[in-house]
Amino acid sequence: MTAEQVSAVRSFNGTQYVFKHKSSTVSCEMTFGVYVPDHTSGTKLPGLIYLSGLTCTHANVMEKGAAQGPASKLGLIFIHPDTSPRGTDVADADRYDLGQGAGFYIDASWEPWSNHFKMRSYIESELLPVVSAVVPALDTTHIGITGHSMGGHGALTLGLTRPDLFRSISAFAPIANPTECDWGRTIFGEYLGDDSKVEWKKFDASILLAAYSGPARSILIDQGTDDNFLKQGQLKPETLKSHGSAAVEVRMQPGYDHSYYFVATFMGDHIEHHHRQLIL
Amino acid sequence: MTAEQVSAVRSFNGTQYVFKHKSSTVSCEMTFGVYVPDHTSGTKLPGLIYLSGLTCTHANVMEKGAAQGPASKLGLIFIHPDTSPRGTDVADADRYDLGQGAGFYIDASWEPWSNHFKMRSYIESELLPVVSAVVPALDTTHIGITGHSMGGHGALTLGLTRPDLFRSISAFAPIANPTECDWGRTIFGEYLGDDSKVEWKKFDASILLAAYSGPARSILIDQGTDDNFLKQGQLKPETLKSHGSAAVEVRMQPGYDHSYYFVATFMGDHIEHHHRQLIL
Repeated sequence: MTAEQVSAVRSFNGTQYVFKHKSSTVSCEMTFGVYVPDHTSGTKLPGLIYLSGLTCTHANVMEKGAAQGPASKLGLIFIHPDTSPRGTDVADADRYDLGQGAGFYIDASWEPWSNHFKMRSYIESELLPVVSAVVPALDTTHIGITGHSMGGHGALTLGLTRPDLFRSISAFAPIANPTECDWGRTIFGEYLGDDSKVEWKKFDASILLAAYSGPARSILIDQGTDDNFLKQGQLKPETLKSHGSAAVEVRMQPGYDHSYYFVATFMGDHIEHHHRQLIL
Repeated sequence: MTAEQVSAVRSFNGTQYVFKHKSSTVSCEMTFGVYVPDHTSGTKLPGLIYLSGLTCTHANVMEKGAAQGPASKLGLIFIHPDTSPRGTDVADADRYDLGQGAGFYIDASWEPWSNHFKMRSYIESELLPVVSAVVPALDTTHIGITGHSMGGHGALTLGLTRPDLFRSISAFAPIANPTECDWGRTIFGEYLGDDSKVEWKKFDASILLAAYSGPARSILIDQGTDDNFLKQGQLKPETLKSHGSAAVEVRMQPGYDHSYYFVATFMGDHIEHHHRQLIL
């Protein structure tokens, strides 16, 4: 089913769109944003998927992420989906890190979440065909993936397990080792069950990285040193180590926090990182 | 009285601050933001005041204006005050274009506004000393002024009447001829009285420009062609014409609207415009 345009606004010599569509994967209406630089008809442009963090929708990075300028300059389509299924019939919880706004980019197998919370499948199977149907310039064979915090975890885990889909990887302040932090243990317990620690490991970037044997990847990570979630042990960037064909660069950025001021500051570098590898 | 720091966050190799202070001019607590690029101790940097539009606070441009990157690159301090006095004892109205959030950068002479609504005096007399007390790097002798919509009106009228304070001028989608548009007539009638049309003209950019005889100024204006307020006749950029020592460039930007997507797109150009003139 074709996505319906919610809005379109000119931005940095391109158009910032918002669309919505009925998702068969997560069984509800989903919203996504996509920024498309101006291009001559028939041109194909590479794309970058940006996965947002806890509590965010598609809108946070659209308003505060400063992606449009660098994406326009280089000619890259910037795709930013929502963080979870939503709606009155979608399960939710009375906390910010579980339920709506907190899909964690995994496929939930436990009740009450398993009905809708299939964000991993949504990103890897449904999103790109839906986007390319409305943005024909998108070259779905040249796609990178990045994200912030929970979305950084999503970008790393999707990127490392689906190198056939994602040719370039980066992350901003990712939850790098969720099986060993409070957020991950709590949420994986809810979505995957407490007794399936084997299953948990499939969604842990540092574990996936240590076993990586796919095509060569150069992975850029930025992490602020004054990030409260870093101090709380939720992020653990030190667990991300180069392994085999995966080269990891973790840049500790002095004084930066976990906010979109941090994301916006380094967004240009990440877009360049992806563009360089996507045009190879 | 020294301003009190509300927040400080790293952004684009600089610091985005928010401060608050008791204003003697508008007789209430006022909040302002200031972005300070990293600099060596003792250095003086030029400054640019950005006046925001209707309904905005100091925060809109801070989050969505994309000023920090270009300000950091060139070494310019970006100062963004609130749009009006605020508080439970400050007069307000049940409409978005009058009262709190809608100071119009004039000094009100009529009740119930005359007690607090002295935004013109606040910007020209109080803001810079308060900012420079907490940001000693600010070179208060090299200050430019810009703004968006109501703030564009503020920037043009302050810039044209106080060339001694403001060395460079620009505006985004300004209310260029308020004495001839609905917003201006309604709000000037409230703040200045219906019978003081002579007074009104002191706060109309197109009238001030047609009589300008101050030092040479090169004024940059950007205006989106798909701006609904342009279509409604609230902005009237065609009334801004070069006159004598004031050279006006109005750039009509095809397809752009009135939003911060428009402001962010051209913010870099405006910061370059000011910086070029401020370092002369």
